[in-house]
Amino acid sequence: MSYHKNKIINDPIYGFIHIPFNIIWEIIAHPYFQRLRRISQLGLSSLVYPGAHHSRFHHAIGAMHLMNQAIRTLKSKGHKITKKEHEASLIAILLHDIGHGPFSHALEHSIVQNLSHEKISIMFMENLNKVFKGRLNLAINIFHKKYKKKFLHQLISSQLDVDRLDYLNRDSFYSGVNEGIINSNRIISMMNIHNNELVIDYKGIYSIEKFIIARKLMYWQVYLHKTVLSAEHTLMKVLKRAKELSKNKNIIYATPQFQLFLSKKEKINLNFFEKNNLLHHFSLLDDTDILTCIKNWTQAKDKILNILSTTIIDRKLLKIKSINKSKIKDKLKEIQNKAIKKLNINKSDVDYLVFPITIKNETYNFIEDEIKFLKKDNSLINLSKIKKEFTINTRNSSIIKHYICYPEGCD
Amino acid sequence: MSYHKNKIINDPIYGFIHIPFNIIWEIIAHPYFQRLRRISQLGLSSLVYPGAHHSRFHHAIGAMHLMNQAIRTLKSKGHKITKKEHEASLIAILLHDIGHGPFSHALEHSIVQNLSHEKISIMFMENLNKVFKGRLNLAINIFHKKYKKKFLHQLISSQLDVDRLDYLNRDSFYSGVNEGIINSNRIISMMNIHNNELVIDYKGIYSIEKFIIARKLMYWQVYLHKTVLSAEHTLMKVLKRAKELSKNKNIIYATPQFQLFLSKKEKINLNFFEKNNLLHHFSLLDDTDILTCIKNWTQAKDKILNILSTTIIDRKLLKIKSINKSKIKDKLKEIQNKAIKKLNINKSDVDYLVFPITIKNETYNFIEDEIKFLKKDNSLINLSKIKKEFTINTRNSSIIKHYICYPEGCD
Amino acid sequence: MSYHKNKIINDPIYGFIHIPFNIIWEIIAHPYFQRLRRISQLGLSSLVYPGAHHSRFHHAIGAMHLMNQAIRTLKSKGHKITKKEHEASLIAILLHDIGHGPFSHALEHSIVQNLSHEKISIMFMENLNKVFKGRLNLAINIFHKKYKKKFLHQLISSQLDVDRLDYLNRDSFYSGVNEGIINSNRIISMMNIHNNELVIDYKGIYSIEKFIIARKLMYWQVYLHKTVLSAEHTLMKVLKRAKELSKNKNIIYATPQFQLFLSKKEKINLNFFEKNNLLHHFSLLDDTDILTCIKNWTQAKDKILNILSTTIIDRKLLKIKSINKSKIKDKLKEIQNKAIKKLNINKSDVDYLVFPITIKNETYNFIEDEIKFLKKDNSLINLSKIKKEFTINTRNSSIIKHYICYPEGCD
Amino acid sequence: MSYHKNKIINDPIYGFIHIPFNIIWEIIAHPYFQRLRRISQLGLSSLVYPGAHHSRFHHAIGAMHLMNQAIRTLKSKGHKITKKEHEASLIAILLHDIGHGPFSHALEHSIVQNLSHEKISIMFMENLNKVFKGRLNLAINIFHKKYKKKFLHQLISSQLDVDRLDYLNRDSFYSGVNEGIINSNRIISMMNIHNNELVIDYKGIYSIEKFIIARKLMYWQVYLHKTVLSAEHTLMKVLKRAKELSKNKNIIYATPQFQLFLSKKEKINLNFFEKNNLLHHFSLLDDTDILTCIKNWTQAKDKILNILSTTIIDRKLLKIKSINKSKIKDKLKEIQNKAIKKLNINKSDVDYLVFPITIKNETYNFIEDEIKFLKKDNSLINLSKIKKEFTINTRNSSIIKHYICYPEGCD
Repeated sequence: MSYHKNKIINDPIYGFIHIPFNIIWEIIAHPYFQRLRRISQLGLSSLVYPGAHHSRFHHAIGAMHLMNQAIRTLKSKGHKITKKEHEASLIAILLHDIGHGPFSHALEHSIVQNLSHEKISIMFMENLNKVFKGRLNLAINIFHKKYKKKFLHQLISSQLDVDRLDYLNRDSFYSGVNEGIINSNRIISMMNIHNNELVIDYKGIYSIEKFIIARKLMYWQVYLHKTVLSAEHTLMKVLKRAKELSKNKNIIYATPQFQLFLSKKEKINLNFFEKNNLLHHFSLLDDTDILTCIKNWTQAKDKILNILSTTIIDRKLLKIKSINKSKIKDKLKEIQNKAIKKLNINKSDVDYLVFPITIKNETYNFIEDEIKFLKKDNSLINLSKIKKEFTINTRNSSIIKHYICYPEGCD
Repeated sequence: MSYHKNKIINDPIYGFIHIPFNIIWEIIAHPYFQRLRRISQLGLSSLVYPGAHHSRFHHAIGAMHLMNQAIRTLKSKGHKITKKEHEASLIAILLHDIGHGPFSHALEHSIVQNLSHEKISIMFMENLNKVFKGRLNLAINIFHKKYKKKFLHQLISSQLDVDRLDYLNRDSFYSGVNEGIINSNRIISMMNIHNNELVIDYKGIYSIEKFIIARKLMYWQVYLHKTVLSAEHTLMKVLKRAKELSKNKNIIYATPQFQLFLSKKEKINLNFFEKNNLLHHFSLLDDTDILTCIKNWTQAKDKILNILSTTIIDRKLLKIKSINKSKIKDKLKEIQNKAIKKLNINKSDVDYLVFPITIKNETYNFIEDEIKFLKKDNSLINLSKIKKEFTINTRNSSIIKHYICYPEGCD
Repeated sequence: MSYHKNKIINDPIYGFIHIPFNIIWEIIAHPYFQRLRRISQLGLSSLVYPGAHHSRFHHAIGAMHLMNQAIRTLKSKGHKITKKEHEASLIAILLHDIGHGPFSHALEHSIVQNLSHEKISIMFMENLNKVFKGRLNLAINIFHKKYKKKFLHQLISSQLDVDRLDYLNRDSFYSGVNEGIINSNRIISMMNIHNNELVIDYKGIYSIEKFIIARKLMYWQVYLHKTVLSAEHTLMKVLKRAKELSKNKNIIYATPQFQLFLSKKEKINLNFFEKNNLLHHFSLLDDTDILTCIKNWTQAKDKILNILSTTIIDRKLLKIKSINKSKIKDKLKEIQNKAIKKLNINKSDVDYLVFPITIKNETYNFIEDEIKFLKKDNSLINLSKIKKEFTINTRNSSIIKHYICYPEGCD
Repeated sequence: MSYHKNKIINDPIYGFIHIPFNIIWEIIAHPYFQRLRRISQLGLSSLVYPGAHHSRFHHAIGAMHLMNQAIRTLKSKGHKITKKEHEASLIAILLHDIGHGPFSHALEHSIVQNLSHEKISIMFMENLNKVFKGRLNLAINIFHKKYKKKFLHQLISSQLDVDRLDYLNRDSFYSGVNEGIINSNRIISMMNIHNNELVIDYKGIYSIEKFIIARKLMYWQVYLHKTVLSAEHTLMKVLKRAKELSKNKNIIYATPQFQLFLSKKEKINLNFFEKNNLLHHFSLLDDTDILTCIKNWTQAKDKILNILSTTIIDRKLLKIKSINKSKIKDKLKEIQNKAIKKLNINKSDVDYLVFPITIKNETYNFIEDEIKFLKKDNSLINLSKIKKEFTINTRNSSIIKHYICYPEGCD
């Protein structure tokens, strides 16, 4: 991957990825983008699937590749897409996730407030737009859904965007859960445009159905795997504890770039972020900071921090069990009481070690921005309106599950 | 694949297939089984998917391999399966499709009457049982669902049998429709036994869901692909025409072994088959007979036979279009009238060239022999009773489609 | 693969194959090309590797796809290739093997004389050129190495042509001997042009080395596999015997189109072929003729024909053993004597059942048309001149092996 | 991967990996082994191949899986291997690389002296042997080549060990350099034992040849890729500089666990390591320490440390060019002089930024511990003695290359 020269990136999934515009290389070469090499795409999932160490860097480039394929396909079907639009779309998808912090959403629920990675992505884009002297304007417009050709935005963010196409294939490939593999080639080959909207040729219904089911499977098998849930929620608890201790003037170890975020007393929200120009500091954070910290905290004096960190580093994770909603309250209390005794901890701290998790997963959303199919008579039909050929029950596709996490021997 | 020596068969899908019992090798070596090398698994599908030339021979061996894996898995979970049962199950699956004639079901609907390949399979098995001096007794019992351990039969024939597991993977692999690929390893690893019935561990629901959707996709994308339907139904028409001509004392070319079936005036049903000891003659038939005949018939004097044969050999297939049930009758008449004029054929013959096709496909059958899941509390639940986690609408999974086939330029 | 419409062919190896020119589709649709669907790429190798049923049709299309990739790569490196040249090159590779008879070289050594498939390929091309009114002129020139841009011919036929790139990958894929898989993408990406010659960028030496070794392995593991040799040489003996019997007025079964070739008393050489306008008759021949004939001959009265045919149809092949050159003569006599007695056959016929085979395989040819590498200083170096980095001993890469084939129990 | 329960690990390469002994699970669960999750198998190669983030943890488990296959194969060929030996061999391969520090050999050449990862592996094994109360005795004996059944050691460490079989496949898979893929199944299926030595059945020569060439290719394409060399040698320079600064009482940032090693004034050799009981401290080091440090050093006051760290973190690597041995001295001086001026650095520091690299790669070693083939007559032949069938020139297979690394614009 010698930049500027042969302009090819090796990808085990798509073979060679060609980079069609110079500015794409320049963005990839920027430290803000290079940082994504050190942010794992699947966070702690590698504790369950040891092959799943691929990075957000690789995913972003893969999604850019699929975007390029999609645009070439649409052009070959006679739709006009200018070179500028083509380039901008590739930039937009390349940067769509650049705001992700270490271990994905871990910080969002522990260190910062009301500050999603989407918002941070936009800050990065705007910052890069200055660096690149306005050459990202159109990309940002597309990203914001402000551009007239709505389908370009839909390719980046919708129920059938190239982001999903890439991550399903990539996460399946690296984790070895090959049931998540979808045929991105075929799906892209059936993309079309109707009134500036992204649609799918009608004959593609079975491929789309399979795509939806494959995605659902990946959610349960990988992203929401019980053990992964336990690990990732424990990680949030670790960070919350560390923040709590820091606030209360305990000196706890942190890498310098992470210390900054840990020791702030104010709420780190969007406002604060911008006022204090924290973006560059944020860009210095990655998975290695979190891992070095947690590794050190396995020696922490604070018992809670110590226990939680050890579960992750030595992979002696908290137990997790599925539970009926109506029983959570009682069961939680019961387990917490046992834990307080068994581990000899304060009652006020038990929430860190025994806690409930609620997750929700929706196979398909039939309310907003549906997948639309283009029939031979040039009319459109929403996925949820296809009664005969779809086996998927679109009305009933949302599932909520409840779990309790707890230290071994406390249930 | 040197028999008796290293006992390994190369398979692009599973790697090496080991043959665990000598009798398996001996059956494979028998001419009745070797004949399956010359019967293509997917008939005329290779006209659409040029890679799909794999044989029933290979599929049978693949299914035997999965059966072996399934039995080893079940044994490792503590279920008792004797060596005799193990061997018999492998024999039964190996021979489950041995009765298939050339191009699968083509003969069943044109040359023979009320004589399914299943019945012929049983005749072959019984015949081989004599050759092997009764060593196939248990295998035949299992095949007939007469053996107490019902799960052995279910592994061979049910909505989740190793037959399906192998053919989905194999047909996907060779056709290149990779969306049909399923994870047979994972599915097998979740098989279990409860009251002598085959069940699936509950955590396997998403894999099963994906299996059902993948199978559905393969039906529409491959097995019931419009162009394949046109080709295969034309093939039946060709054979019907040839039979008709033969009956009426026209001399038409046929290979000697096929001539026998073509020229019989009587109905070739089970009774007639057994009385005349036709099994051995049948065992000499394979795809090459049909193809040589059709190739010759492209020069036939009979216009109908000539036209139909040419559509297949030169791949200038009859057009096929989807049609609403209510309109079939009128549309058929309309197209037939055009064809009579355009091709200058007799009215009585037009059915050979312009004809309707009706197909039915059922994604999942919730009435008989459902897939059952084993919960952690050791209770069973039928797939169709799982409301929350299944996205598949089991009640509404049967689709009927109608088409008309016709020569180009006649619609 | 609905012609003219979406212009895409499904390929398990390359995914979707796009057809860039209309004339390519028209040639594919011609019966002469469609015939290749019924000619297996690897002949009787499927007796050893049961998955190896892929056709010459599929290989020709695959090679055309790689040619398209190669030309696009060369153009992207700044070399001028006109649209006409592009199209002609694709036609030339598509038709490079169209003259192959059933089971590859079987006829060449038994039924016809001095009539290679290359010569027949040219006859087909010229015939098609008439059909297509001269639009194949340039393709034929390129095929004949008469066109100034020599590299176009080299892409079709040289030690590193797209023919080899496709067949290695395809034969590996379908047989499951995955050690033959090469990275055609990478090799093509390193192709270049120097003085109108095809060259390889120097940094590609290790990929080329691996390509050469992979090809060698495929020769020994598949193409020249002992059991395959036995089967294919037996096939030639079968055909020779049939021809012999036919000449001597024995009536033996043959399909009509094969009968023509079998019963000719004259030498079927190029001259005779052209004079009698045999090309069209030849175009009606394919694997199914040979297989139907051999299947019938398992019932032949002629004992030799009967025995030989049975070895193939029932896969009870002649034994084959490797032998030292110096011992062939004695050993052959010894085994032949045993066979005469054991099988009670005429001395004059024993050559059909006990015969020697000599094969030669050359890993790399350093004498003519070497693979050339382009150094950074723009100078060329022949592969055989690279001393340091190549592990392959180019001088010593030709191997000759000797075998004897014989019926079981005769050694 | 829930330990103790289903005992299966998902592997994208081999599918499911079954763990056959409880002690294997217990060792995997130990923090010393879990640490390998945080040590990348290919160090900085992911800067060139973005998919290559797989860990030593995964490789060790993969090699254990192949060892299990090899032992089962050898047993099936009639060789006696006891359950104890079987288990011990799996332990030995599982732990063969446990002594690797962060980024593989980076520490060995900068922080510690005469202390190879092999020596540290042994320390870990002995330590674990105490934890497991002597149950690793046999494994350690095998590892030390002290056990009578020499082939068990050879499976762990020789020119054809399961270590190589796994890493070639794994590194190919994750990097996407699919030319390195070998058929470990086939190679293992041809393993045999002769006089307690590991040998290969003669018919396996072409697979072995291909294995050797594939490994060679992986060396040049991945392990010794120019850009990787630049990155990894720069990493050593970074660490050396940091150590140097530390020694001279400069305060530079380091994670606590790395600070310990950085600040030691004594030579950290085996003796010192044991005396100070450093093993446990070492076990707390992993890639994240090095990366966090280097990331901080991009802000270091020391100019050299700052520049070097930035080249790695922002992937603006030192240029590297191949150079003739005779010209190194002059060229090095020339470039160093330019760099001194251009970057305004001390002459004594220029070695950190402009330096030569010499690498050696040997395709096959014909002097010690050759690969041996077992002929049908039960005699052995060394690979280097096979003249006819091997294309590899075993005598001439060692290559030495020289490079110079330097900052952009200094050549």
